[in-house]
Amino acid sequence: MAEKVRMRGGKERRKSETRIWLQILSLESIVFSRLNSALNADFGLSVAKFEFLAQIDRQPDGISLGAISANLKVTSGNVSGLVSRLLADKLIAKEISREDRRSFIVTFTAKGKALFDRANDLHARTLAECFADVPTPLLQGSLTTLRSLSSTMTRSRRGR
Amino acid sequence: MAEKVRMRGGKERRKSETRIWLQILSLESIVFSRLNSALNADFGLSVAKFEFLAQIDRQPDGISLGAISANLKVTSGNVSGLVSRLLADKLIAKEISREDRRSFIVTFTAKGKALFDRANDLHARTLAECFADVPTPLLQGSLTTLRSLSSTMTRSRRGR
Repeated sequence: MAEKVRMRGGKERRKSETRIWLQILSLESIVFSRLNSALNADFGLSVAKFEFLAQIDRQPDGISLGAISANLKVTSGNVSGLVSRLLADKLIAKEISREDRRSFIVTFTAKGKALFDRANDLHARTLAECFADVPTPLLQGSLTTLRSLSSTMTRSRRGR
Repeated sequence: MAEKVRMRGGKERRKSETRIWLQILSLESIVFSRLNSALNADFGLSVAKFEFLAQIDRQPDGISLGAISANLKVTSGNVSGLVSRLLADKLIAKEISREDRRSFIVTFTAKGKALFDRANDLHARTLAECFADVPTPLLQGSLTTLRSLSSTMTRSRRGR
């Protein structure tokens, strides 16, 4: 029964699923490569490094490495490799958590925060360029649709 | 003037753009990691290798490496590395194009075609699982929205 529900729909549904996946992959690829080129050229940051720093920016009192790993959406984000490189570049600091001594907390260095703020402006400008020709109603509609899709899929994943 | 159009909208539009990008990244990451695990476990294929082989499957008479590179959506798809590994695994064959001797044409080996067909079934089953809880109207609506978004963005990219 569960198997029937899981594979519901026939050939047409299979085709739609494949096409949606190829559209997601294509959109991700277009935006990712533009962001990656821009961030690398101006700040030596990959999208993965930028997304890592963006997590810290949302938690200025510090965030655990575990929470960053759980939230990081970038496929190629090898967290321990990213940490080493960001520490070597003196963009972040790492210390043992006072609440849980098995856990590490990361924060910005002053250099890291200053670099991130400038990179964040470039990130927003690059996204604005990517979506420049998208009318606002389509932009809002896309956000609503993607959120519905995402919440349905995340629920489905958690349920198993 | 062009600059004004490019950065149209204010803070609200900037927020929507960032949120759409994070949704795309998140959806891509969820589906990508499930496909990658399944394909690697059963067939030793990464998503990048699978997408490369899928291009050959769509052009059974052979496809040039240039065309594969142009169509490949996978961010981490290093085409020359993929070709070496797929040749070493005897999944594809490569020959000089008769029409353009500077260009290489790749085709399946019998082993490659047989492996791809089985991997393709697993790929479809895994996608069906990912989208299992998404109602068909939302699935169709998402495809329509993503296509509109994609065509607007691709046009915008080509125009520059």
